[in-house]
Amino acid sequence: MYPLLVQVFMDEQTTITALRTHVSNFRNKRNWLKDNTPKNLAISISVEAAELLEHFQWKSDEQIREGLKDRIKKNQVSDELADVLILCLSFSDVMGIDISEAIEAKLRKAAEKYPVMKA
Amino acid sequence: MYPLLVQVFMDEQTTITALRTHVSNFRNKRNWLKDNTPKNLAISISVEAAELLEHFQWKSDEQIREGLKDRIKKNQVSDELADVLILCLSFSDVMGIDISEAIEAKLRKAAEKYPVMKA
Amino acid sequence: MYPLLVQVFMDEQTTITALRTHVSNFRNKRNWLKDNTPKNLAISISVEAAELLEHFQWKSDEQIREGLKDRIKKNQVSDELADVLILCLSFSDVMGIDISEAIEAKLRKAAEKYPVMKA
Amino acid sequence: MYPLLVQVFMDEQTTITALRTHVSNFRNKRNWLKDNTPKNLAISISVEAAELLEHFQWKSDEQIREGLKDRIKKNQVSDELADVLILCLSFSDVMGIDISEAIEAKLRKAAEKYPVMKA
Repeated sequence: MYPLLVQVFMDEQTTITALRTHVSNFRNKRNWLKDNTPKNLAISISVEAAELLEHFQWKSDEQIREGLKDRIKKNQVSDELADVLILCLSFSDVMGIDISEAIEAKLRKAAEKYPVMKA
Repeated sequence: MYPLLVQVFMDEQTTITALRTHVSNFRNKRNWLKDNTPKNLAISISVEAAELLEHFQWKSDEQIREGLKDRIKKNQVSDELADVLILCLSFSDVMGIDISEAIEAKLRKAAEKYPVMKA
Repeated sequence: MYPLLVQVFMDEQTTITALRTHVSNFRNKRNWLKDNTPKNLAISISVEAAELLEHFQWKSDEQIREGLKDRIKKNQVSDELADVLILCLSFSDVMGIDISEAIEAKLRKAAEKYPVMKA
Repeated sequence: MYPLLVQVFMDEQTTITALRTHVSNFRNKRNWLKDNTPKNLAISISVEAAELLEHFQWKSDEQIREGLKDRIKKNQVSDELADVLILCLSFSDVMGIDISEAIEAKLRKAAEKYPVMKA
Protein backbone atom coordinates (compact mmCIF):
# COMPACT_ATOMS: atom_id res chain seq x y z
CA MET A 1 0.00 0.00 0.00
CA TYR A 2 1.39 3.36 -1.01
CA PRO A 3 0.38 6.69 0.46
CA LEU A 4 -1.34 9.21 -1.77
CA LEU A 5 1.45 11.20 -3.37
CA VAL A 6 -0.58 13.84 -5.13
CA GLN A 7 -0.18 17.25 -3.53
CA VAL A 8 -3.43 19.17 -3.37
CA PHE A 9 -3.18 22.92 -3.84
CA MET A 10 -5.85 25.04 -2.17
CA ASP A 11 -5.56 28.63 -0.99
CA GLU A 12 -6.54 27.78 2.59
CA GLN A 13 -3.41 25.72 3.15
CA THR A 14 -0.98 26.71 0.40
CA THR A 15 1.75 29.16 1.35
CA ILE A 16 3.20 31.60 -1.17
CA THR A 17 6.51 29.79 -0.93
CA ALA A 18 4.90 26.42 -1.72
CA LEU A 19 3.12 27.88 -4.74
CA ARG A 20 6.26 29.61 -5.99
CA THR A 21 8.29 26.43 -5.60
CA HIS A 22 5.67 24.56 -7.60
CA VAL A 23 5.88 27.14 -10.40
CA SER A 24 9.69 27.32 -10.31
CA ASN A 25 10.02 23.54 -10.53
CA PHE A 26 7.72 23.48 -13.54
CA ARG A 27 9.81 26.17 -15.23
CA ASN A 28 13.21 24.71 -14.36
CA LYS A 29 12.33 21.23 -15.60
CA ARG A 30 11.70 22.80 -19.01
CA ASN A 31 14.95 24.77 -19.02
CA TRP A 32 13.05 28.07 -19.20
CA LEU A 33 14.96 29.75 -16.39
CA LYS A 34 17.55 31.28 -18.74
CA ASP A 35 14.80 33.18 -20.62
CA ASN A 36 13.14 34.29 -17.37
CA THR A 37 14.94 37.61 -17.09
CA PRO A 38 13.10 40.36 -15.18
CA LYS A 39 12.50 42.23 -18.48
CA ASN A 40 11.08 39.20 -20.31
CA LEU A 41 8.88 38.31 -17.35
CA ALA A 42 7.60 41.88 -17.03
CA ILE A 43 6.72 41.85 -20.75
CA SER A 44 4.78 38.64 -20.39
CA ILE A 45 3.00 39.79 -17.23
CA SER A 46 1.70 42.74 -19.28
CA VAL A 47 0.74 40.50 -22.20
CA GLU A 48 -1.18 38.11 -19.94
CA ALA A 49 -2.82 40.94 -17.99
CA ALA A 50 -4.16 42.22 -21.32
CA GLU A 51 -5.48 38.76 -22.19
CA LEU A 52 -7.37 38.84 -18.89
CA LEU A 53 -8.71 42.31 -19.72
CA GLU A 54 -9.74 41.13 -23.19
CA HIS A 55 -12.53 39.07 -21.63
CA PHE A 56 -14.19 42.24 -20.34
CA GLN A 57 -13.71 44.66 -23.25
CA TRP A 58 -16.78 46.28 -24.86
CA LYS A 59 -18.98 44.81 -22.11
CA SER A 60 -20.91 46.45 -19.30
CA ASP A 61 -20.59 45.20 -15.72
CA GLU A 62 -24.09 43.76 -16.09
CA GLN A 63 -23.22 41.82 -19.27
CA ILE A 64 -20.08 40.53 -17.59
CA ARG A 65 -22.03 39.33 -14.54
CA GLU A 66 -24.38 37.41 -16.83
CA GLY A 67 -21.55 35.96 -18.90
CA LEU A 68 -19.65 34.71 -15.85
CA LYS A 69 -22.57 32.48 -14.87
CA ASP A 70 -21.30 30.24 -17.65
CA ARG A 71 -18.79 27.80 -16.13
CA ILE A 72 -16.65 27.62 -19.29
CA LYS A 73 -16.35 31.38 -19.47
CA LYS A 74 -15.43 31.59 -15.80
CA ASN A 75 -12.74 28.94 -16.26
CA GLN A 76 -11.25 30.91 -19.14
CA VAL A 77 -10.99 33.97 -16.91
CA SER A 78 -9.52 31.79 -14.15
CA ASP A 79 -6.89 30.52 -16.59
CA GLU A 80 -5.88 34.05 -17.58
CA LEU A 81 -5.54 35.08 -13.94
CA ALA A 82 -3.40 31.99 -13.36
CA ASP A 83 -1.14 33.01 -16.27
CA VAL A 84 -0.57 36.44 -14.73
CA LEU A 85 0.14 34.95 -11.31
CA ILE A 86 2.46 32.17 -12.55
CA LEU A 87 4.62 34.85 -14.17
CA CYS A 88 4.47 37.06 -11.07
CA LEU A 89 5.61 34.13 -8.92
CA SER A 90 8.48 33.41 -11.30
CA PHE A 91 9.34 37.11 -11.32
CA SER A 92 9.45 37.20 -7.51
CA ASP A 93 11.63 34.08 -7.58
CA VAL A 94 14.13 35.54 -10.04
CA MET A 95 14.18 38.91 -8.26
CA GLY A 96 14.31 37.47 -4.74
CA ILE A 97 11.18 39.35 -3.66
CA ASP A 98 9.14 38.16 -0.69
CA ILE A 99 5.61 38.76 -1.96
CA SER A 100 3.95 38.86 1.47
CA GLU A 101 6.46 41.45 2.68
CA ALA A 102 6.12 43.47 -0.52
CA ILE A 103 2.31 43.53 -0.27
CA GLU A 104 2.43 44.36 3.44
CA ALA A 105 4.89 47.22 2.76
CA LYS A 106 2.69 48.54 -0.07
CA LEU A 107 -0.48 48.39 2.02
CA ARG A 108 1.25 50.28 4.83
CA LYS A 109 2.14 53.08 2.42
CA ALA A 110 -1.36 53.04 0.93
CA ALA A 111 -2.84 53.23 4.44
CA GLU A 112 -1.04 56.55 4.97
CA LYS A 113 -2.21 57.88 1.64
CA TYR A 114 -5.79 56.67 2.10
CA PRO A 115 -6.56 56.66 5.83
CA VAL A 116 -9.79 55.01 6.96
CA MET A 117 -12.42 57.65 7.69
CA LYS A 118 -14.10 57.45 11.07
CA ALA A 119 -17.90 57.59 11.18
CA MET B 1 2.78 41.70 29.64
CA TYR B 2 1.00 41.74 26.35
CA PRO B 3 1.59 39.33 23.52
CA LEU B 4 2.95 40.67 20.24
CA LEU B 5 -0.11 41.61 18.24
CA VAL B 6 1.56 42.51 14.98
CA GLN B 7 1.02 39.88 12.31
CA VAL B 8 4.18 39.26 10.33
CA PHE B 9 3.71 38.43 6.66
CA MET B 10 6.38 36.26 5.07
CA ASP B 11 6.00 33.91 2.12
CA GLU B 12 7.26 30.88 4.06
CA GLN B 13 4.29 30.92 6.40
CA THR B 14 1.63 33.04 4.72
CA THR B 15 -1.15 31.20 2.92
CA ILE B 16 -2.87 32.65 -0.14
CA THR B 17 -6.08 32.88 1.88
CA ALA B 18 -4.35 34.85 4.65
CA LEU B 19 -2.86 37.28 2.16
CA ARG B 20 -6.16 37.71 0.31
CA THR B 21 -8.00 38.32 3.57
CA HIS B 22 -5.44 40.98 4.45
CA VAL B 23 -5.97 42.72 1.09
CA SER B 24 -9.76 42.39 1.22
CA ASN B 25 -9.92 43.88 4.72
CA PHE B 26 -7.84 46.83 3.61
CA ARG B 27 -10.14 47.40 0.63
CA ASN B 28 -13.40 46.92 2.52
CA LYS B 29 -12.46 49.32 5.32
CA ARG B 30 -12.11 52.00 2.63
CA ASN B 31 -15.44 51.18 1.01
CA TRP B 32 -13.75 50.33 -2.28
CA LEU B 33 -15.55 47.01 -2.74
CA LYS B 34 -18.33 48.57 -4.82
CA ASP B 35 -15.83 49.81 -7.43
CA ASN B 36 -14.01 46.47 -7.48
CA THR B 37 -15.94 44.97 -10.37
CA PRO B 38 -14.11 42.33 -12.43
CA LYS B 39 -13.84 44.81 -15.33
CA ASN B 40 -12.39 47.63 -13.22
CA LEU B 41 -9.95 45.27 -11.52
CA ALA B 42 -8.82 43.80 -14.85
CA ILE B 43 -8.21 47.34 -16.15
CA SER B 44 -6.08 48.21 -13.14
CA ILE B 45 -4.15 44.92 -13.26
CA SER B 46 -3.13 45.90 -16.83
CA VAL B 47 -2.27 49.45 -15.77
CA GLU B 48 -0.10 48.24 -12.90
CA ALA B 49 1.54 45.51 -15.01
CA ALA B 50 2.59 48.25 -17.44
CA GLU B 51 4.01 50.32 -14.57
CA LEU B 52 6.12 47.30 -13.65
CA LEU B 53 7.22 46.95 -17.27
CA GLU B 54 8.07 50.65 -17.42
CA HIS B 55 11.07 50.02 -15.14
CA PHE B 56 12.66 47.81 -17.78
CA GLN B 57 11.88 49.69 -21.01
CA TRP B 58 14.74 50.80 -23.28
CA LYS B 59 17.19 48.83 -21.11
CA SER B 60 19.23 45.71 -21.85
CA ASP B 61 19.22 42.77 -19.43
CA GLU B 62 22.75 43.77 -18.45
CA GLN B 63 21.75 47.38 -17.66
CA ILE B 64 18.79 46.10 -15.64
CA ARG B 65 20.98 43.74 -13.62
CA GLU B 66 23.28 46.64 -12.77
CA GLY B 67 20.37 48.94 -11.90
CA LEU B 68 18.76 46.43 -9.57
CA LYS B 69 21.84 46.41 -7.33
CA ASP B 70 20.49 49.74 -6.09
CA ARG B 71 18.21 49.02 -3.13
CA ILE B 72 15.86 51.95 -3.88
CA LYS B 73 15.38 50.81 -7.46
CA LYS B 74 14.69 47.25 -6.34
CA ASN B 75 12.13 48.47 -3.83
CA GLN B 76 10.34 50.43 -6.56
CA VAL B 77 10.08 47.27 -8.66
CA SER B 78 8.92 45.37 -5.58
CA ASP B 79 6.19 47.97 -5.03
CA GLU B 80 4.94 47.64 -8.61
CA LEU B 81 4.80 43.85 -8.33
CA ALA B 82 2.86 44.26 -5.08
CA ASP B 83 0.36 46.53 -6.87
CA VAL B 84 -0.28 43.90 -9.53
CA LEU B 85 -0.69 41.17 -6.92
CA ILE B 86 -2.93 43.16 -4.57
CA LEU B 87 -5.32 43.67 -7.49
CA CYS B 88 -5.07 40.01 -8.52
CA LEU B 89 -5.92 38.94 -4.96
CA SER B 90 -8.91 41.29 -4.91
CA PHE B 91 -9.95 39.99 -8.33
CA SER B 92 -9.79 36.38 -7.10
CA ASP B 93 -11.84 37.41 -4.05
CA VAL B 94 -14.56 39.11 -6.10
CA MET B 95 -14.66 36.27 -8.65
CA GLY B 96 -14.48 33.45 -6.10
CA ILE B 97 -11.38 31.95 -7.72
CA ASP B 98 -9.08 29.67 -5.72
CA ILE B 99 -5.67 30.82 -6.96
CA SER B 100 -3.80 27.65 -6.01
CA GLU B 101 -6.33 25.50 -7.84
CA ALA B 102 -6.30 27.84 -10.86
CA ILE B 103 -2.50 27.76 -11.08
CA GLU B 104 -2.39 23.98 -10.59
CA ALA B 105 -5.02 23.53 -13.34
CA LYS B 106 -3.09 25.84 -15.70
CA LEU B 107 0.22 24.08 -15.06
CA ARG B 108 -1.40 20.70 -15.75
CA LYS B 109 -2.59 21.98 -19.15
CA ALA B 110 0.80 23.55 -19.85
CA ALA B 111 2.52 20.26 -18.94
CA GLU B 112 0.59 18.51 -21.72
CA LYS B 113 1.48 21.25 -24.19
CA TYR B 114 5.13 21.40 -23.15
CA PRO B 115 6.14 17.94 -21.91
CA VAL B 116 9.51 17.62 -20.20
CA MET B 117 12.07 16.16 -22.61
CA LYS B 118 13.99 13.15 -21.38
CA ALA B 119 17.76 13.14 -21.75
CA MET C 1 -15.92 54.27 -69.64
CA TYR C 2 -16.11 54.74 -65.88
CA PRO C 3 -13.41 56.28 -63.75
CA LEU C 4 -11.65 54.10 -61.20
CA LEU C 5 -13.73 54.40 -58.06
CA VAL C 6 -11.48 52.54 -55.66
CA GLN C 7 -9.74 54.86 -53.22
CA VAL C 8 -6.15 53.85 -52.72
CA PHE C 9 -4.71 54.45 -49.26
CA MET C 10 -0.98 55.07 -49.07
CA ASP C 11 0.92 57.03 -46.45
CA GLU C 12 2.48 59.37 -49.02
CA GLN C 13 -0.86 60.90 -49.96
CA THR C 14 -3.27 59.98 -47.16
CA THR C 15 -4.00 62.66 -44.59
CA ILE C 16 -4.80 61.82 -40.98
CA THR C 17 -8.30 63.20 -41.54
CA ALA C 18 -8.87 60.96 -44.56
CA LEU C 19 -7.72 57.89 -42.64
CA ARG C 20 -9.84 58.78 -39.60
CA THR C 21 -12.89 59.33 -41.78
CA HIS C 22 -12.33 55.92 -43.35
CA VAL C 23 -12.19 54.28 -39.92
CA SER C 24 -15.15 56.24 -38.55
CA ASN C 25 -17.32 55.31 -41.54
CA PHE C 26 -16.49 51.65 -41.07
CA ARG C 27 -17.42 51.88 -37.39
CA ASN C 28 -20.59 53.91 -37.86
CA LYS C 29 -21.99 51.61 -40.55
CA ARG C 30 -21.82 48.80 -37.97
CA ASN C 31 -23.50 50.85 -35.25
CA TRP C 32 -20.44 50.57 -33.02
CA LEU C 33 -20.27 54.27 -32.18
CA LYS C 34 -22.39 53.92 -29.04
CA ASP C 35 -19.86 51.45 -27.53
CA ASN C 36 -16.91 53.65 -28.54
CA THR C 37 -16.67 55.54 -25.27
CA PRO C 38 -13.23 56.90 -24.37
CA LYS C 39 -12.92 54.29 -21.59
CA ASN C 40 -13.82 51.34 -23.82
CA LEU C 41 -11.50 52.54 -26.56
CA ALA C 42 -8.63 53.05 -24.12
CA ILE C 43 -9.16 49.49 -22.82
CA SER C 44 -9.02 48.08 -26.34
CA ILE C 45 -5.98 50.16 -27.30
CA SER C 46 -4.17 48.50 -24.37
CA VAL C 47 -5.44 45.05 -25.32
CA GLU C 48 -4.29 45.46 -28.95
CA ALA C 49 -0.94 46.98 -27.92
CA ALA C 50 -0.33 43.84 -25.86
CA GLU C 51 -1.21 41.63 -28.85
CA LEU C 52 1.43 43.52 -30.82
CA LEU C 53 3.91 43.00 -27.97
CA GLU C 54 3.04 39.29 -27.83
CA HIS C 55 4.83 38.77 -31.15
CA PHE C 56 8.12 39.81 -29.58
CA GLN C 57 7.96 38.16 -26.16
CA TRP C 58 10.70 35.70 -25.10
CA LYS C 59 12.67 36.61 -28.25
CA SER C 60 15.97 38.44 -28.69
CA ASP C 61 16.28 41.30 -31.17
CA GLU C 62 18.30 38.96 -33.39
CA GLN C 63 15.62 36.24 -33.38
CA ILE C 64 12.98 38.87 -34.15
CA ARG C 65 14.99 40.22 -37.10
CA GLU C 66 15.23 36.71 -38.52
CA GLY C 67 11.54 35.98 -37.93
CA LEU C 68 10.40 39.17 -39.65
CA LYS C 69 12.00 38.06 -42.91
CA ASP C 70 8.98 35.79 -43.18
CA ARG C 71 6.27 37.70 -45.07
CA ILE C 72 3.39 36.04 -43.18
CA LYS C 73 4.92 36.91 -39.83
CA LYS C 74 5.48 40.50 -40.90
CA ASN C 75 1.87 40.77 -42.05
CA GLN C 76 0.65 39.54 -38.67
CA VAL C 77 2.66 42.27 -36.95
CA SER C 78 1.32 44.78 -39.48
CA ASP C 79 -2.23 43.70 -38.64
CA GLU C 80 -1.67 44.20 -34.92
CA LEU C 81 -0.24 47.67 -35.48
CA ALA C 82 -3.28 48.46 -37.63
CA ASP C 83 -5.58 47.36 -34.79
CA VAL C 84 -3.88 49.73 -32.36
CA LEU C 85 -4.06 52.60 -34.85
CA ILE C 86 -7.68 52.02 -35.90
CA LEU C 87 -8.67 52.33 -32.25
CA CYS C 88 -6.46 55.40 -31.75
CA LEU C 89 -8.10 57.06 -34.76
CA SER C 90 -11.55 56.28 -33.40
CA PHE C 91 -10.46 57.57 -29.99
CA SER C 92 -9.25 60.84 -31.52
CA ASP C 93 -12.56 61.09 -33.39
CA VAL C 94 -14.69 60.58 -30.28
CA MET C 95 -12.52 62.92 -28.20
CA GLY C 96 -12.15 65.61 -30.86
CA ILE C 97 -8.36 65.45 -30.77
CA ASP C 98 -6.31 66.68 -33.72
CA ILE C 99 -3.56 64.04 -33.84
CA SER C 100 -1.04 66.15 -35.75
CA GLU C 101 -1.43 69.01 -33.28
CA ALA C 102 -1.21 66.61 -30.31
CA ILE C 103 1.98 65.01 -31.62
CA GLU C 104 3.50 68.37 -32.48
CA ALA C 105 2.68 69.67 -28.97
CA LYS C 106 4.16 66.54 -27.37
CA LEU C 107 7.37 66.73 -29.44
CA ARG C 108 7.79 70.38 -28.50
CA LYS C 109 7.63 69.47 -24.81
CA ALA C 110 9.98 66.50 -25.35
CA ALA C 111 12.42 68.78 -27.18
CA GLU C 112 12.74 70.92 -24.04
CA LYS C 113 13.25 67.85 -21.87
CA TYR C 114 15.71 66.22 -24.27
CA PRO C 115 17.55 68.99 -26.13
CA VAL C 116 19.74 67.99 -29.06
CA MET C 117 23.39 67.98 -28.02
CA LYS C 118 25.75 69.96 -30.22
CA ALA C 119 28.93 68.25 -31.43
CA MET D 1 10.10 90.37 -45.42
CA TYR D 2 10.65 86.72 -44.60
CA PRO D 3 8.20 83.92 -45.34
CA LEU D 4 6.70 82.01 -42.43
CA LEU D 5 9.02 79.07 -41.87
CA VAL D 6 7.08 77.26 -39.20
CA GLN D 7 5.39 74.13 -40.49
CA VAL D 8 1.86 73.82 -39.14
CA PHE D 9 0.65 70.31 -38.42
CA MET D 10 -3.09 69.73 -38.70
CA ASP D 11 -4.89 66.50 -39.53
CA GLU D 12 -6.74 68.04 -42.50
CA GLN D 13 -3.55 68.57 -44.45
CA THR D 14 -0.91 66.37 -42.81
CA THR D 15 -0.14 63.07 -44.50
CA ILE D 16 0.96 60.02 -42.54
CA THR D 17 4.33 60.23 -44.26
CA ALA D 18 4.80 63.86 -43.24
CA LEU D 19 3.94 63.06 -39.62
CA ARG D 20 6.22 60.01 -39.55
CA THR D 21 9.09 62.01 -41.05
CA HIS D 22 8.58 64.62 -38.33
CA VAL D 23 8.75 61.96 -35.62
CA SER D 24 11.71 60.15 -37.20
CA ASN D 25 13.71 63.36 -37.50
CA PHE D 26 13.08 64.13 -33.86
CA ARG D 27 14.26 60.65 -32.86
CA ASN D 28 17.29 60.55 -35.15
CA LYS D 29 18.59 63.93 -34.02
CA ARG D 30 18.75 62.48 -30.50
CA ASN D 31 20.52 59.29 -31.60
CA TRP D 32 17.64 57.16 -30.36
CA LEU D 33 17.33 55.09 -33.54
CA LYS D 34 19.68 52.37 -32.26
CA ASP D 35 17.37 51.69 -29.27
CA ASN D 36 14.26 51.74 -31.46
CA THR D 37 14.15 48.00 -32.11
CA PRO D 38 10.71 46.53 -32.85
CA LYS D 39 10.72 44.80 -29.43
CA ASN D 40 11.63 47.95 -27.48
CA LEU D 41 9.06 49.99 -29.39
CA ALA D 42 6.34 47.38 -28.83
CA ILE D 43 7.13 47.43 -25.09
CA SER D 44 6.81 51.21 -24.95
CA ILE D 45 3.62 51.25 -27.03
CA SER D 46 2.09 48.98 -24.36
CA VAL D 47 3.46 51.13 -21.52
CA GLU D 48 2.06 54.31 -23.05
CA ALA D 49 -1.28 52.67 -23.91
CA ALA D 50 -1.60 51.80 -20.22
CA GLU D 51 -0.82 55.39 -19.24
CA LEU D 52 -3.68 56.46 -21.48
CA LEU D 53 -5.94 53.87 -19.86
CA GLU D 54 -4.88 55.03 -16.40
CA HIS D 55 -6.86 58.25 -16.91
CA PHE D 56 -10.09 56.26 -17.12
CA GLN D 57 -9.61 53.62 -14.43
CA TRP D 58 -12.15 53.36 -11.57
CA LYS D 59 -14.37 55.92 -13.35
CA SER D 60 -17.77 55.53 -15.00
CA ASP D 61 -18.38 56.86 -18.52
CA GLU D 62 -20.43 59.64 -16.93
CA GLN D 63 -17.62 60.69 -14.56
CA ILE D 64 -15.19 60.64 -17.48
CA ARG D 65 -17.44 62.84 -19.61
CA GLU D 66 -17.61 65.37 -16.77
CA GLY D 67 -13.86 65.25 -16.16
CA LEU D 68 -13.01 65.82 -19.81
CA LYS D 69 -14.78 69.18 -19.76
CA ASP D 70 -11.68 70.37 -17.94
CA ARG D 71 -9.20 71.58 -20.57
CA ILE D 72 -6.12 70.54 -18.55
CA LYS D 73 -7.46 67.03 -18.12
CA LYS D 74 -8.26 66.77 -21.81
CA ASN D 75 -4.74 67.91 -22.72
CA GLN D 76 -3.25 65.23 -20.48
CA VAL D 77 -5.27 62.59 -22.33
CA SER D 78 -4.22 64.16 -25.62
CA ASP D 79 -0.58 63.92 -24.58
CA GLU D 80 -0.90 60.23 -23.73
CA LEU D 81 -2.53 59.50 -27.09
CA ALA D 82 0.31 61.39 -28.77
CA ASP D 83 2.85 59.21 -26.92
CA VAL D 84 1.20 56.03 -28.21
CA LEU D 85 1.08 57.39 -31.76
CA ILE D 86 4.64 58.75 -31.83
CA LEU D 87 5.86 55.27 -30.93
CA CYS D 88 3.55 53.64 -33.50
CA LEU D 89 4.90 55.97 -36.19
CA SER D 90 8.47 55.13 -35.23
CA PHE D 91 7.55 51.44 -35.21
CA SER D 92 6.10 51.68 -38.72
CA ASP D 93 9.24 53.51 -39.82
CA VAL D 94 11.59 50.89 -38.42
CA MET D 95 9.47 48.02 -39.75
CA GLY D 96 8.79 49.57 -43.15
CA ILE D 97 5.03 49.36 -42.71
CA ASP D 98 2.71 51.61 -44.73
CA ILE D 99 0.10 52.49 -42.11
CA SER D 100 -2.65 53.44 -44.56
CA GLU D 101 -2.24 50.15 -46.42
CA ALA D 102 -2.10 48.18 -43.16
CA ILE D 103 -5.32 49.82 -41.89
CA GLU D 104 -7.06 49.36 -45.23
CA ALA D 105 -6.05 45.68 -45.30
CA LYS D 106 -7.28 45.18 -41.74
CA LEU D 107 -10.62 46.90 -42.39
CA ARG D 108 -11.15 44.73 -45.47
CA LYS D 109 -10.69 41.59 -43.34
CA ALA D 110 -12.91 43.01 -40.59
CA ALA D 111 -15.59 43.83 -43.19
CA GLU D 112 -15.79 40.13 -44.09
CA LYS D 113 -16.00 39.12 -40.45
CA TYR D 114 -18.54 41.80 -39.55
CA PRO D 115 -20.63 42.51 -42.66
CA VAL D 116 -22.98 45.51 -42.55
CA MET D 117 -26.54 44.37 -41.91
CA LYS D 118 -29.15 45.60 -44.35
CA ALA D 119 -32.33 47.09 -42.94
